[in-house]
Amino acid sequence: MNERNRVVIIGGGFGGLWAAKALANKPVEVALIDRKNHHVFQPLLYQVATAVLSPGEIASPIRRILHHAKNIEVILGEAVDFDKENNAVRLDDGTEVPFDYLIVAAGARHAYFGRDEWETWAPGLKTLEDAVEIRRRVLLAFELAERKAALSGVQDELTFAVVGAGPTGVELAGAIAGIARQALNKDFKAIDTSKARVVLFEGSDRVLGTFASDLSESAKQQLEELGVEVRLNSFVTEIEPGKLKVGEEWFECDVVLWATGVAASPLGSRLGVETDRAGRVKVEPDLSIAGHPNIFVIGDMVHLLQENGEPVPGVSPAAMQMGSATSENILAEIKGRPRKNFVYVDKGSMATIGRSRAIAQVFGMKFRGFVAWLMWLFLHVVFLIGFRNRLFVLMGWFWAYLTRERSARLITGDANELRDALMFMEGEEAVKLLEKLAAKETSAGPKEPA
Amino acid sequence: MNERNRVVIIGGGFGGLWAAKALANKPVEVALIDRKNHHVFQPLLYQVATAVLSPGEIASPIRRILHHAKNIEVILGEAVDFDKENNAVRLDDGTEVPFDYLIVAAGARHAYFGRDEWETWAPGLKTLEDAVEIRRRVLLAFELAERKAALSGVQDELTFAVVGAGPTGVELAGAIAGIARQALNKDFKAIDTSKARVVLFEGSDRVLGTFASDLSESAKQQLEELGVEVRLNSFVTEIEPGKLKVGEEWFECDVVLWATGVAASPLGSRLGVETDRAGRVKVEPDLSIAGHPNIFVIGDMVHLLQENGEPVPGVSPAAMQMGSATSENILAEIKGRPRKNFVYVDKGSMATIGRSRAIAQVFGMKFRGFVAWLMWLFLHVVFLIGFRNRLFVLMGWFWAYLTRERSARLITGDANELRDALMFMEGEEAVKLLEKLAAKETSAGPKEPA
Repeated sequence: MNERNRVVIIGGGFGGLWAAKALANKPVEVALIDRKNHHVFQPLLYQVATAVLSPGEIASPIRRILHHAKNIEVILGEAVDFDKENNAVRLDDGTEVPFDYLIVAAGARHAYFGRDEWETWAPGLKTLEDAVEIRRRVLLAFELAERKAALSGVQDELTFAVVGAGPTGVELAGAIAGIARQALNKDFKAIDTSKARVVLFEGSDRVLGTFASDLSESAKQQLEELGVEVRLNSFVTEIEPGKLKVGEEWFECDVVLWATGVAASPLGSRLGVETDRAGRVKVEPDLSIAGHPNIFVIGDMVHLLQENGEPVPGVSPAAMQMGSATSENILAEIKGRPRKNFVYVDKGSMATIGRSRAIAQVFGMKFRGFVAWLMWLFLHVVFLIGFRNRLFVLMGWFWAYLTRERSARLITGDANELRDALMFMEGEEAVKLLEKLAAKETSAGPKEPA
Repeated sequence: MNERNRVVIIGGGFGGLWAAKALANKPVEVALIDRKNHHVFQPLLYQVATAVLSPGEIASPIRRILHHAKNIEVILGEAVDFDKENNAVRLDDGTEVPFDYLIVAAGARHAYFGRDEWETWAPGLKTLEDAVEIRRRVLLAFELAERKAALSGVQDELTFAVVGAGPTGVELAGAIAGIARQALNKDFKAIDTSKARVVLFEGSDRVLGTFASDLSESAKQQLEELGVEVRLNSFVTEIEPGKLKVGEEWFECDVVLWATGVAASPLGSRLGVETDRAGRVKVEPDLSIAGHPNIFVIGDMVHLLQENGEPVPGVSPAAMQMGSATSENILAEIKGRPRKNFVYVDKGSMATIGRSRAIAQVFGMKFRGFVAWLMWLFLHVVFLIGFRNRLFVLMGWFWAYLTRERSARLITGDANELRDALMFMEGEEAVKLLEKLAAKETSAGPKEPA
């Protein structure tokens, strides 16, 4: 029996998973290495962050997804470096994993324009942990406002700021406005949750800037119908606990969420080839790196220009296509056939804004509102990985649609969070204020938002 | 309009929630204070800990459960002390919440026999966070064994130890044995998960000691059929990372779970009345405390002898009965009627051991095996709070029963966990060992467990 080629895949996101699927039960030995044991269906992360879905509803254990593939071994571990000359990946505990072919698909995170300290005050949304943390902050803000109002009769203004009006920022802003106006309002008694402000800050002159400009305009209108304040040409230059700065103006906000900028996985820089400003690896037309045709980089980590001069976008369909194409190239080469250069096929794009609201451009046509939302819904449910998850998500949505209820609305975490949150959001003033209020020195009714 | 009496309830577990339900839309003003925003259906916590259910499937936001009660305000906060003379509860931020009647229902945790440092190595199971942490440890142990076996070909022995054979310990041991032998085995390729050892240590001479002795014997047999090693008369005297001591014998184990001992909430000691060794508050026959007839303590925090001289057991039916009875006494007193003393009604008890396995004693009869399990299943599903949760749990179980699959099998947490876990479980030796193994100095096949 011939020694079979060993393919190592780093990352179990869309790119890595699609690469693995294309190699399933083929004549190669595959090891997929990921820091987490689960694949996350990222397009629905914002629904976990806004308490519509539970983490388990949008994630599956990677080894469960690939359990039918007898030639694929899933390994929990973090790749930290490469030995390109000896064809090995180094894990964080020093283990070296040898390969004949390597596919690096470690993804990207949000970038903070060199101000990484902002992440503490303004978390981004890339992992399940991020989503749970955002859910915690959003729900906790309502809980604290309720507590204060219940004990003092005063309703403070409650402001949620979202920075960046790309797909994630638009989804988050729309969803928070949605739960504040509908799902939460019947459960909170001392405050009127629908008075919560949701402000979406965007540095450029339109939302969802990768779409046609009339769709951008429609998206902005749909956001405003949901109650979101959209501030264009508003580049955030400073973030501090409880506030952010645009130009010379400071905005007070209870929760800040970050949804802009791209920083590719730092693994890319360990490959020793040219990267762009976002840390994306410049690859050959077949997605391999210069001088090492057996090492490929795919997905959000890649900087590759298409024939039209535009870069391949950092979206999940591109990652999936790269994953499949790379695996097919490897299988072809093993059979002695030539590789093909990667060509990205743009099948259209869509962005959801809120319940019954979305925009889409597909087949050269444009859609907006309810029809676009139905298309988005259909596509995402069909794509969801794993039968059980698909069924449950559909049912969960159906139920949420009928009742506008939220079952995933749990705040989990440390018991000291409440105190920490108070300190964090408003400084020590908050505690003093609460004490003062509890002493009933104030007795005004609920305040109108400014 | 008369000033209505203000009832403050501390704790949103079974006791506090049932007290609140009995006061819903009655002529009192109620504030329910809890550190968490959600009620947890504790009898199913072990299913979250063993990746059968997701956290959202056994928990509901407390304000959701009570949203129909117009007179009940739910407040997120931690009660830390009482001002009994001025009838106020002090929260951790210094806020004082005034009351006319107070119901303290802050529950209990596991006790470590004065060795609180053991909790780090041997977590207990009382909260959703505990359950997620246990799930993480159990799944991580399998992942690490798989990783080592995949990279080296050597399968290490994998041992799960559960300390204490009360209901929680038996459920955990049975469920871990179950997933190791069924759900996980088709997904892990380098190791045979069914070879994992599950050892249940019990200090007394039988499992589930509150049941009739022949049912205890049946439970032990059912556990052994599932592959659990039951060690009776085995009192654990020492726990260190990766091992525990019984008598003079040390046992190596990858994961230790703690399921014995009771320590009532430390809030009980702030009431200034007598407590028992477990910190439970000694109450008057009507569940109020001596000298303060408007302050009640209920649930697992209470030490109260029944007429037969036995204490009321720390089980959820007792907590629910106490909650309802206390609220009824308060409502009666407001109407000028006398209070009634609390009488616990034992409606029987049951304990589940694993899929299709349980014991039950109800209506003076004893049941074991599949029939007892069906009874357990029916009762717990009916009791589950909230329509959506009930439906989903039923469907999830049905699906798991048909497919023996686990959808909740996610390890969430920090990316450094893997390293931490390695260090924790086997010390720095583990890293060296992995390095050595990776260098392929060993090439033996999978090892048989001893």
